[in-house]
Amino acid sequence: MFTCDAFAVDGPDKTFHPFTFERRDPLDHDVDIEILYCGVCHSDLHTARSDWEGTIYPCVPGHEIVGKVRRVGKKVTRFKEGDTVGVGCMVNSCGTCDCCRAGLEQYCEKGNTLTYNSPDPETGKDRYTFGGYSKRIVVNDNFVLSVPENLDLAGAAPLLCAGITTYSPLRHWKAGKGMKVGVAGLGGLGHMAVKLAHAMGADVTMLTTSPSKEADARRLGAHHVVLTRDSENLAKAAKTLDLIIDTIAAKHNIDAYLNLLKVNGTLVQVGAPAEPLPVGVFNLITARRSLAGSCIGGIAETQEMLDFCGKHNITADIELIKAQEIDKAYERMLKSDVKYRFVIDMASF
Amino acid sequence: MFTCDAFAVDGPDKTFHPFTFERRDPLDHDVDIEILYCGVCHSDLHTARSDWEGTIYPCVPGHEIVGKVRRVGKKVTRFKEGDTVGVGCMVNSCGTCDCCRAGLEQYCEKGNTLTYNSPDPETGKDRYTFGGYSKRIVVNDNFVLSVPENLDLAGAAPLLCAGITTYSPLRHWKAGKGMKVGVAGLGGLGHMAVKLAHAMGADVTMLTTSPSKEADARRLGAHHVVLTRDSENLAKAAKTLDLIIDTIAAKHNIDAYLNLLKVNGTLVQVGAPAEPLPVGVFNLITARRSLAGSCIGGIAETQEMLDFCGKHNITADIELIKAQEIDKAYERMLKSDVKYRFVIDMASF
Repeated sequence: MFTCDAFAVDGPDKTFHPFTFERRDPLDHDVDIEILYCGVCHSDLHTARSDWEGTIYPCVPGHEIVGKVRRVGKKVTRFKEGDTVGVGCMVNSCGTCDCCRAGLEQYCEKGNTLTYNSPDPETGKDRYTFGGYSKRIVVNDNFVLSVPENLDLAGAAPLLCAGITTYSPLRHWKAGKGMKVGVAGLGGLGHMAVKLAHAMGADVTMLTTSPSKEADARRLGAHHVVLTRDSENLAKAAKTLDLIIDTIAAKHNIDAYLNLLKVNGTLVQVGAPAEPLPVGVFNLITARRSLAGSCIGGIAETQEMLDFCGKHNITADIELIKAQEIDKAYERMLKSDVKYRFVIDMASF
Repeated sequence: MFTCDAFAVDGPDKTFHPFTFERRDPLDHDVDIEILYCGVCHSDLHTARSDWEGTIYPCVPGHEIVGKVRRVGKKVTRFKEGDTVGVGCMVNSCGTCDCCRAGLEQYCEKGNTLTYNSPDPETGKDRYTFGGYSKRIVVNDNFVLSVPENLDLAGAAPLLCAGITTYSPLRHWKAGKGMKVGVAGLGGLGHMAVKLAHAMGADVTMLTTSPSKEADARRLGAHHVVLTRDSENLAKAAKTLDLIIDTIAAKHNIDAYLNLLKVNGTLVQVGAPAEPLPVGVFNLITARRSLAGSCIGGIAETQEMLDFCGKHNITADIELIKAQEIDKAYERMLKSDVKYRFVIDMASF
C-alpha cells in the first residue's frame, strides 16, 4: 500500500478538500499511474452530490485520466515506466460474459468496476474505488489505454469519457462520408461529437437552442446549424438527418428531434435525462425511426478512438483549473459556463 | 365508370348501411377485382369514427382485401381474369422518391394513396378512395399482390395488413434461428407475429397480461409465455430477448418491456398508442437498446410475405361475418372479443 493525495468530498452539500488514502501496490497485472490531468465530467458532479443516490463518502470522483506510468506489475508487458496512458470510466469487468468477450465491457453482465464510487473486488481494504481527482491510480492493464504522444495531454483527458461516449455511437451507427449527422446540444459531449463526426467525413448539423453558439459550432466543424427554438427551422430540417447524437441531459422535446430523422434514421441519446421522455409513437412508426441509447464504449474501441484522435489531432477544448477550484467549476458547469470541459492540473496539488 | 355496391358509414356516430358509388373502369395499368373477403382492421374503426380526425364521409373502410381478377387494363401483363389476388393498405405511391425506389412505398416521401379515405389522383370524380367493404375494387397493378392458391382465402385477407405489419419488422430486424423474439399483446397483429416468428425459426415468447391467453399463445406457436402483470416474472425475463414486436395500441409501461431486451436489443412498436409513451432513457443507455417503429411493409416485401405464408400454410385465425354485422363486430373489437380477426364475407351482400 502507498499513500495517495487526492481531493474528496464528504457529503452531498459539502465542498472538496485535500484528502489522503491508501492505494494498493501494483498486483501482477496492474499499472501504477502518476496522474497529470483529470477532466471534470457532469457525472462527477452528480455523484459528488449524490443526485443519483448511492454515493459513498468520502468520494473522490474523476474518470477522464491522463498520466505517466510510474511502475508496472510483474506480468504487464504492454506498458513500461514513462509511457503516456489514460484511464476512463471503468477499471475492470468480469471478462467472461458475452458482453466482455465481445469487447463491450461497458455493458458487462456481472457489473463492471467503475473508476470511482464502485465496489472494488481487487482491493481488500478500500471497498469503493477512488477516482482521478488524485495524484496516482493503480489499474489493471486491460483497462489502461495508450495516449498518442502528439496530443495535448490536458486536452486529451476528456477523450476518456466525453470522447468515447460520442465516438462509440458514431461508429456503431456508421457515421461517415455521405451520412448526415446531427448533434443536439453543444457542451462537453456535443463539442466532441461535432469534432469526431466531422473527422469521420460526415455532413454535420449542430442542433442548438442558442444563436450565440452558432459561430463556435462552425469553428468546431459543423457544416450547418439549426436553431431549434424556431419551429420554422425545425420544419425546414424535417427528414434531413440519418443519425442524431443527442447529448442533452435535461428534459427536452424528443419528438421535435425525431422528426428531423429520415426514414430508417436513429436518434441516440448519450445524455441521460433523469425523468422519462414522452415519445410520440407515430413519429417512430411513420418513418421506421429508432430512439436508442449508448453508454461510453468498450476498451478496444476506446483505444481505437484515441488512435483516431491522434491521427486527426483531436482533443477537447478545455479550461485548465487547479484542484482547489473544483467547487467553483461545478457551479459554473451548472450554468453551462464552460467551453467545453474543465480539466484539473494535478501539478496544482 | 361502373356502379359498385358497398357498406359505408356517414359520420363518427353513425352505423354502416348499404351504399353504391361509381368506380373507374380499368386504366391501362389497372386491375378490376371482384372482392371475396375483406378483413376488419382496428384502423377501419378509428377511421369510421374519425378518432384520428380527417375522415371524409361517406366512408368505405377496408384494406385487407382478397378477391379474383375480373378484368385487366391493356398494359397489365402480370395478372389475368380469374387470378387470386390481394390488396393491402396502399393502392399507389409516387414511384420516384428514394423510398419508393427502395421498395419502401409505405414511407413514400410524396405521400402514397391509401386504400380508403385518401385523396386519389387517379380518379377524377371520387376525390377520396373507397376501400374493401365493397364488391369490387380497381387498383394499379403495381399494388396488386398474388395470393397463393393453397391458402384459405378468408384467412388470407388479414395477411394484407396484420400479416405484413408484423412480417416486415421481423425481417428487417432479422428474426430467425438463434434469435429470441418477444411478442407483446395477443390480438390481430400479435397472433400473426407469433405465427410468423415461429415459422422463421425464432424462439418466441408471448408477453401478455392475461393468464387466459397462455394456452392459445402456445397453440399459435409461442415457446414461452411471460405474464407481464407480475413484476417477478418481468424480473426473471430481464435481458432475455433480442427483439420485441410490440402490438399494444393502448398506453403501456414501455420501460418494463424495454428492460426485457438484451444488450443491442430492439423493441419495435407496430401498435400506435395515441398518447406519447414516457421512456426512461437510462433503460436505453445502459444496454444500447433501441425503441423503433414500423409501418406495414413495401409491396415487394408484401409479396414475399404472402409467398412465405403460402409455403408455411399460414393464415390468420378469423371469425367470418356478414356485411350487416360490421357495427356489432366493431363493438366486440373494442372489448377485444375476437379471435383474432373479423373478416367480411362479400357473398353476404
